[in-house]
Amino acid sequence: MATHHRDRAVTADLRDPRTSSGGALLDLLTGHLPRVGDGARRHDRDGTFPVEVFEGLRTGGALGATVPAELGGLGVTSLHDVSLALTTVAEADASTALALHMQLSRGLTLTHEWLYGDDRARALAERLLRGMGSGEAVVCTTVKDAGGGRVVTRLRPAPDGGWLLSGRKTLASMAPIATDFVVSARVDVAGVTRSAAAVLPRRTPGLTVLDNWDGLGMRASGSVDILLEDCPVGAEDVFLRGPVGEVADAALAGQTVSSITMLGIYVGVAQAARDLVVSELTRRGGSPSAGVRTLLAEIEARLYALRTTVGSTLSVADHLAYEFDGDPAERGRRMMFDFQRAKLTVNRLAPEIVSDCLSVIGGASYSGSHPLARLYRDVRAGAFMHPFTYPDAVDWLSDATLGGAKE
Amino acid sequence: MATHHRDRAVTADLRDPRTSSGGALLDLLTGHLPRVGDGARRHDRDGTFPVEVFEGLRTGGALGATVPAELGGLGVTSLHDVSLALTTVAEADASTALALHMQLSRGLTLTHEWLYGDDRARALAERLLRGMGSGEAVVCTTVKDAGGGRVVTRLRPAPDGGWLLSGRKTLASMAPIATDFVVSARVDVAGVTRSAAAVLPRRTPGLTVLDNWDGLGMRASGSVDILLEDCPVGAEDVFLRGPVGEVADAALAGQTVSSITMLGIYVGVAQAARDLVVSELTRRGGSPSAGVRTLLAEIEARLYALRTTVGSTLSVADHLAYEFDGDPAERGRRMMFDFQRAKLTVNRLAPEIVSDCLSVIGGASYSGSHPLARLYRDVRAGAFMHPFTYPDAVDWLSDATLGGAKE
Amino acid sequence: MATHHRDRAVTADLRDPRTSSGGALLDLLTGHLPRVGDGARRHDRDGTFPVEVFEGLRTGGALGATVPAELGGLGVTSLHDVSLALTTVAEADASTALALHMQLSRGLTLTHEWLYGDDRARALAERLLRGMGSGEAVVCTTVKDAGGGRVVTRLRPAPDGGWLLSGRKTLASMAPIATDFVVSARVDVAGVTRSAAAVLPRRTPGLTVLDNWDGLGMRASGSVDILLEDCPVGAEDVFLRGPVGEVADAALAGQTVSSITMLGIYVGVAQAARDLVVSELTRRGGSPSAGVRTLLAEIEARLYALRTTVGSTLSVADHLAYEFDGDPAERGRRMMFDFQRAKLTVNRLAPEIVSDCLSVIGGASYSGSHPLARLYRDVRAGAFMHPFTYPDAVDWLSDATLGGAKE
Amino acid sequence: MATHHRDRAVTADLRDPRTSSGGALLDLLTGHLPRVGDGARRHDRDGTFPVEVFEGLRTGGALGATVPAELGGLGVTSLHDVSLALTTVAEADASTALALHMQLSRGLTLTHEWLYGDDRARALAERLLRGMGSGEAVVCTTVKDAGGGRVVTRLRPAPDGGWLLSGRKTLASMAPIATDFVVSARVDVAGVTRSAAAVLPRRTPGLTVLDNWDGLGMRASGSVDILLEDCPVGAEDVFLRGPVGEVADAALAGQTVSSITMLGIYVGVAQAARDLVVSELTRRGGSPSAGVRTLLAEIEARLYALRTTVGSTLSVADHLAYEFDGDPAERGRRMMFDFQRAKLTVNRLAPEIVSDCLSVIGGASYSGSHPLARLYRDVRAGAFMHPFTYPDAVDWLSDATLGGAKE
Repeated sequence: MATHHRDRAVTADLRDPRTSSGGALLDLLTGHLPRVGDGARRHDRDGTFPVEVFEGLRTGGALGATVPAELGGLGVTSLHDVSLALTTVAEADASTALALHMQLSRGLTLTHEWLYGDDRARALAERLLRGMGSGEAVVCTTVKDAGGGRVVTRLRPAPDGGWLLSGRKTLASMAPIATDFVVSARVDVAGVTRSAAAVLPRRTPGLTVLDNWDGLGMRASGSVDILLEDCPVGAEDVFLRGPVGEVADAALAGQTVSSITMLGIYVGVAQAARDLVVSELTRRGGSPSAGVRTLLAEIEARLYALRTTVGSTLSVADHLAYEFDGDPAERGRRMMFDFQRAKLTVNRLAPEIVSDCLSVIGGASYSGSHPLARLYRDVRAGAFMHPFTYPDAVDWLSDATLGGAKE
Repeated sequence: MATHHRDRAVTADLRDPRTSSGGALLDLLTGHLPRVGDGARRHDRDGTFPVEVFEGLRTGGALGATVPAELGGLGVTSLHDVSLALTTVAEADASTALALHMQLSRGLTLTHEWLYGDDRARALAERLLRGMGSGEAVVCTTVKDAGGGRVVTRLRPAPDGGWLLSGRKTLASMAPIATDFVVSARVDVAGVTRSAAAVLPRRTPGLTVLDNWDGLGMRASGSVDILLEDCPVGAEDVFLRGPVGEVADAALAGQTVSSITMLGIYVGVAQAARDLVVSELTRRGGSPSAGVRTLLAEIEARLYALRTTVGSTLSVADHLAYEFDGDPAERGRRMMFDFQRAKLTVNRLAPEIVSDCLSVIGGASYSGSHPLARLYRDVRAGAFMHPFTYPDAVDWLSDATLGGAKE
Repeated sequence: MATHHRDRAVTADLRDPRTSSGGALLDLLTGHLPRVGDGARRHDRDGTFPVEVFEGLRTGGALGATVPAELGGLGVTSLHDVSLALTTVAEADASTALALHMQLSRGLTLTHEWLYGDDRARALAERLLRGMGSGEAVVCTTVKDAGGGRVVTRLRPAPDGGWLLSGRKTLASMAPIATDFVVSARVDVAGVTRSAAAVLPRRTPGLTVLDNWDGLGMRASGSVDILLEDCPVGAEDVFLRGPVGEVADAALAGQTVSSITMLGIYVGVAQAARDLVVSELTRRGGSPSAGVRTLLAEIEARLYALRTTVGSTLSVADHLAYEFDGDPAERGRRMMFDFQRAKLTVNRLAPEIVSDCLSVIGGASYSGSHPLARLYRDVRAGAFMHPFTYPDAVDWLSDATLGGAKE
Repeated sequence: MATHHRDRAVTADLRDPRTSSGGALLDLLTGHLPRVGDGARRHDRDGTFPVEVFEGLRTGGALGATVPAELGGLGVTSLHDVSLALTTVAEADASTALALHMQLSRGLTLTHEWLYGDDRARALAERLLRGMGSGEAVVCTTVKDAGGGRVVTRLRPAPDGGWLLSGRKTLASMAPIATDFVVSARVDVAGVTRSAAAVLPRRTPGLTVLDNWDGLGMRASGSVDILLEDCPVGAEDVFLRGPVGEVADAALAGQTVSSITMLGIYVGVAQAARDLVVSELTRRGGSPSAGVRTLLAEIEARLYALRTTVGSTLSVADHLAYEFDGDPAERGRRMMFDFQRAKLTVNRLAPEIVSDCLSVIGGASYSGSHPLARLYRDVRAGAFMHPFTYPDAVDWLSDATLGGAKE
């Protein structure tokens, strides 16, 4: 494994990469940013996925960034650096960052399977990672059942020894270009209902990628539904997890790794809004009015708190993910505790920053074609990052604070 | 003039009409609300104006509500009751309320011209009011020059003794169905640049109603631009005001009457968001989680403060507009002082309420087709109500508080 | 009963009295305000009760303000006007207003007993009211058991047919000068534990008024503990209520009347802070800096929302208390619903206003002898007004909103 | 110089020392904390300085912590670690931490004089540092002129070739036990008015330490006034700075070093409030109510943002202070920019946390003897940390953001 920290952190506010591979990813992405930004308005308006951007990222190697170098990728493992990469992309377009997160975070968790899983898991992970590393595989992971969870996606045994998968998934960002899907499902094994993740190529019979994403924001993220009707899944193409409902604090680490880098997306949104304001005020010239000066100072202070909180959280997450060698349950709880506290902070500060930026710019920012109008819609997605919802976070954090043994 | 207050105010939170004519308007609107609500999603998505709704309002008499009874209208004069009517409509669709405000507030200010103006102004006002009262005239007023004010709309003398009007106006809500336009402009008279308002029928040569409204929210309000190219205007079709730049606190009264009833629109938006939440929680049943209960209590408290502040402000505005008989400059300052303080309150509370409602509902509310997604966009328009912007309000309020003589 | 409203409300923000008796009370208090203000700093520093102020109020008739005229008082019944009186006093000193509330609210609730109680209650109420009206009786009511409720104050039968009262009460504002105490207690009657309120003269054997009040703020309010050791209470000196734990929404009306006028105290605190700021900025002269102007505009807007919300709430409370003739349970729920929503608003806005005022004034306001330092401490008492605490308000309001039938 | 960072930062939230000398200071302080905490209530109530605590710190070596080892101290140079030490002390008593800051920050800036000053400055700094290192010197620095700056403290030439110092200083924390004073003053040299800092032993004729500190909070910090009446100052006992009014961004670095570690004090105050709440809820047992759970989650999230923002800021300040080798003006601007943004964040989050803690605990926390009542008063001092006031911070930050060249 690579070293995850440079000798010394000179900034702690999510500005500089901590690893050389993270730096390489940033450099690589930089060339794509103009195209990302150029299409942002159009894809937002039309709710279309920026296929051309992702084609560029794929051929340029960015989609394999978190694949180990041995398997053809850039070998980025630092959560901090992945998050920083997402911040940078989000400054140009948050939807693109959200879709990119899908691929990059999958690389991280598949690498963990490849290193520590059982034989079947290692083989399956390696196959996917090699595809991602070569640029052939684009992997969309879907966790959430459609319809508020009224229908649960399930694997059931197929006559040929494999499985049949049925259900419907929602919020499958990046699905429009995915070559493979990792679909969470429930499965009964020896009388016990367990969690599982099935891997399906896009061409699988019964798998339909809908074109139904129409969000308030993040409209170019392609977060569509996936319909699964008796899809055949090979016996070797399933990651088996523990029993459903089993409380396993150790698993909180993996859940955190899967999602925590998304915090950077909202840093990027807030930064983009702030940069627009500074650019417009500079263009206007003269001395801004009292209200504008006050808003500006508050924007700067909040953005600073946002960046340092997220940057610190990611740095510590790297340590806990890769260097901590204590109790896995403790690791899981610590990672989730940091993540959730940082997430509440992000979801308070980032929308406040964007809203204050609209107040500085005035009525022009209320036009649907103004970038701030897009940022105002995109930033509100932060509250719905998995896990948790605000009410669930209140429950989890208050329980965790009081020892978790209140019930 | 009608009596503006019932004997006693039983509620002060913008729930009950204060005048019988206001009550009649509310009753009349009630029948139209289902149609308003039914089209809200579609018109918002497509950015189209609800022509059919306004046709119904016109034939039903609602568009003449603020026209004096002598001239064929309902004779509603209470600012409180007009605002309450807009609240009620906004609960179904805020865009419709914003467009309706255009016609209703024009009735109020034209009535003032008809009662107190010079002969030409009285005649012009009466002509427009009779048209509005009979349902034939739908009057769109445009104040704001397009392009950030870089080109100023101007009247210049025409050879025939009338005027020619040129310029471009923006944010002309309800223009798609307007039969007449009241266009603010500058005019040089005897070496002095004065403000004026020119009245033009829609068919006037050189007048083009663009179809270019594409807002972050309020998408069905038809707030398009109006292009004016050497439009002929009759000598008798212009309201002449005082010199540009003249400080006239008395004029603050008219500016307040023109805009203050819009406060009710954002009360309606917040109320609609709250009602959706209560309805959804009731549907879910069971005891809500800790975070939801806390959000709900905060939503209720803020909505209450919002309704009582706006309701009180409108009641006092009615008194100042119709019964105050002191110094007109003092009246203007008091009306604007109340309006701006209430506006800051509205623009803090209403967005907080809507945002908290999204947090209660969760990810489902982030879908573009969810009503809360529309309310989240619509509510942000409140900051851009004329007058003032937030920075201008900071200047005006701090000057007013410290005596207005700081420069 | 007096008429509770002038013909028309010209302002709705707790500035003008609604009844002539309320106006008389305000006029009467005005003469005492200089003395109230003069002693505020000293009594706050030393934690002493302003005995001299209350002696003046007593001999001047203010302590009988809410006693019916037939019984020797001013006959003020309007909750709005009592609250406005407390606002006015609180602008000079909040502790004095808090202590004065004790007497004035008691007059209101005793008048209700005198009008609608059973024979014993009417006689008892009349005796107390006549004393208050003549200036001889100063009545301190104590509700809260000391020690977090671990010991409950109880009445038990005495051999002579009367009662013996034992327990310890806390937060008995105005006790230092009280001539009589109304002490809430539990009593077993015919096998049922009921609530009761026992009336005791100060000289009652076993009754000790401690000198132990040392609050963060409200330091001159004399909110001491009362020790009760086998105090004899006459059979006729007890108001008997319903069974403990009985849910009686009708009783919410009396609870509201007892406490709602305290909202005005925090309006007064916020107003005093704002007035200090404006006075200091006027003294400094020149144009304030950007941050100061913005703070000032926000202070004005919040104070306006605070005043209109509280003023409206009190106006409606007057209607519900005196003119509503529907279901008493509905009346109780409506009164408490308004009260709690207004209370949350007060406890958010008033501390924000005071805190912003400190930010305007700067380091000088951090001196213990600066009036803002006292206001910063006093304003925080608002959260602890009875009923409810913030957590209890969350429960009550969310239940009330969802129909009260969630358990 | 010592190494300022351990190899790797495992946490970024101001929890672990970054240097071994910082760790030694923390260990040393730990033994004193019980005594600090025990006296906190009493010294706060009486407004007395904890002489006995500082006598222990002095004899134990803590007062020489930031003196270089060569001069007899512990050699702590890390701003992060000094701030962490102050956080730890502030958890027991914020006033003690504020007074201790006086001595520790003086060690840091005198060390800079000793290393980089001219010969006279080096000699003077070395004399003071050796005294601090041996425990004999306790050095109080006073910057702020009393009376709102109406009288400026000045040095004027004395007949003996030295100086005479006259004026009055305020907010001289720790003065009650100081052996020496460093007094900022103005001095005319060769026709130019320059800034200077004069060093005076306590016994200097004309120097009077008043006993007039009576703050809203921080009452045990001994922040008294110093009266200076023609005090003789030796020619060699003055640090001469540049011309008054000279814009010198490089000097912002020294100003930041002098004050930035105070941020940790308010982290300690917030942490102490949070710990009290968790301890009380644990004592109560059972499942907390909805409102309490929500407050608790919000407290945790805010405290986390506070700790990570301050921790990150201090880490970067260490880098800029000791390792940055670019343009000194840029260094100064960067240090102040971080400091001011962090300070706004601290002054928003810390008071919110403490206020929410009072809401959880309820009325008991409003007693003057409850620790939360002290924390509520202490935390508000953060806004008045030098530099800047809130309005000045708005001006500085908005100018800095827009390039500093707006006038």
